[in-house]
Amino acid sequence: MQIAVVVYDRFTALDAVGPYEVLSRAPGAETVFVAERPGPVRTDTGALAVVADRSLDEVRGPDVVLVPGGPGQSALMEHGPLLDWLRAADATSTWTTSVCTGSLLLAAAGLLDGRRATSHWLALDQLERFGAAPAEERVVFDGKYVTAAGVSAGIDMGLALLGRIAGDEHAQAVQLATEYDPRPPYDAGSPDKAPAHLVESLRAGSRFILR
Amino acid sequence: MQIAVVVYDRFTALDAVGPYEVLSRAPGAETVFVAERPGPVRTDTGALAVVADRSLDEVRGPDVVLVPGGPGQSALMEHGPLLDWLRAADATSTWTTSVCTGSLLLAAAGLLDGRRATSHWLALDQLERFGAAPAEERVVFDGKYVTAAGVSAGIDMGLALLGRIAGDEHAQAVQLATEYDPRPPYDAGSPDKAPAHLVESLRAGSRFILR
Repeated sequence: MQIAVVVYDRFTALDAVGPYEVLSRAPGAETVFVAERPGPVRTDTGALAVVADRSLDEVRGPDVVLVPGGPGQSALMEHGPLLDWLRAADATSTWTTSVCTGSLLLAAAGLLDGRRATSHWLALDQLERFGAAPAEERVVFDGKYVTAAGVSAGIDMGLALLGRIAGDEHAQAVQLATEYDPRPPYDAGSPDKAPAHLVESLRAGSRFILR
Repeated sequence: MQIAVVVYDRFTALDAVGPYEVLSRAPGAETVFVAERPGPVRTDTGALAVVADRSLDEVRGPDVVLVPGGPGQSALMEHGPLLDWLRAADATSTWTTSVCTGSLLLAAAGLLDGRRATSHWLALDQLERFGAAPAEERVVFDGKYVTAAGVSAGIDMGLALLGRIAGDEHAQAVQLATEYDPRPPYDAGSPDKAPAHLVESLRAGSRFILR
């Protein structure tokens, strides 16, 4: 089973690394990081680069497609090579997945028309404009399309998908191995829980945090 | 404020990327990935390489030191260049931190003698052998030393530390921006919650999952 993690300039690292960390531990998984051109790809903060080992052209027919989000997504919404690749890969994939604003790229490729899907809470309205039916849920399955909410939601998505692929017991073993028993020190992880002024600040585009 | 994330062959990606994703969003943070030699560093699964932009020699006096864990840690427990660097960096750091078996490297450098600290649940006994006082907690603060349990615990550690560094409100804003409102699909993230046979399987060294 080949898992293709698509990366691009200014993606958000945790969007990709969260689900990678669990899905890559599926039995028989071959995970590959792909980009338009192979080589280092710099994330949104500028402080981290990950290596794309393969170009899009070199990866044809992956079983699982995973598209992370991040500020760099907005520059790719009409980017032919990536959207063409997503459509071609989706034609034969078993699962087509995204985290955060990665779902906007799937939508821009026409893959989420009329489908229930999610995204970062700040991007749900955009998702609707691109033809999907936005759902305010952390992980949304619609057939073979699996979308996760913002950034950290990719870990929950990855584990849920791992359960479908490899069985609940294997997914639980990976949860135990990665000690995923989260205890956030605050309870501000969604717009309905966080202080209202912080929600407004992020809506207004707090660049310091979102870059 | 400079944050140095130390990477090495066969570290676990999420150990580093989880806390990086939140700490790098502290006001004025300059985050740098460092390794003995700069360039791509391959993680434990073999499927992902991240780039160390600087060598250890190039980073002197970081304010925050972050050491991830992973299977590659065991080969470094007597590794002079890394342990020497950790001791030197710790001499002037404001915070010295680790995730998962990264705490074993801090302990091997002599930095956790008699201190309360944690690690991956499978490594707590080793931590004790290296002079620390192991605590079965997800995040442990002992003075400027902050250690996290396995893999995903680094996110909780990063947010808690971000609160100390930048204030609770900033940390909450970053939690909201990264939509960290976790909902694991299973409740198997710690040895006291997971099915006993899975705990035993991992204790026996289930290589498929832990590599």
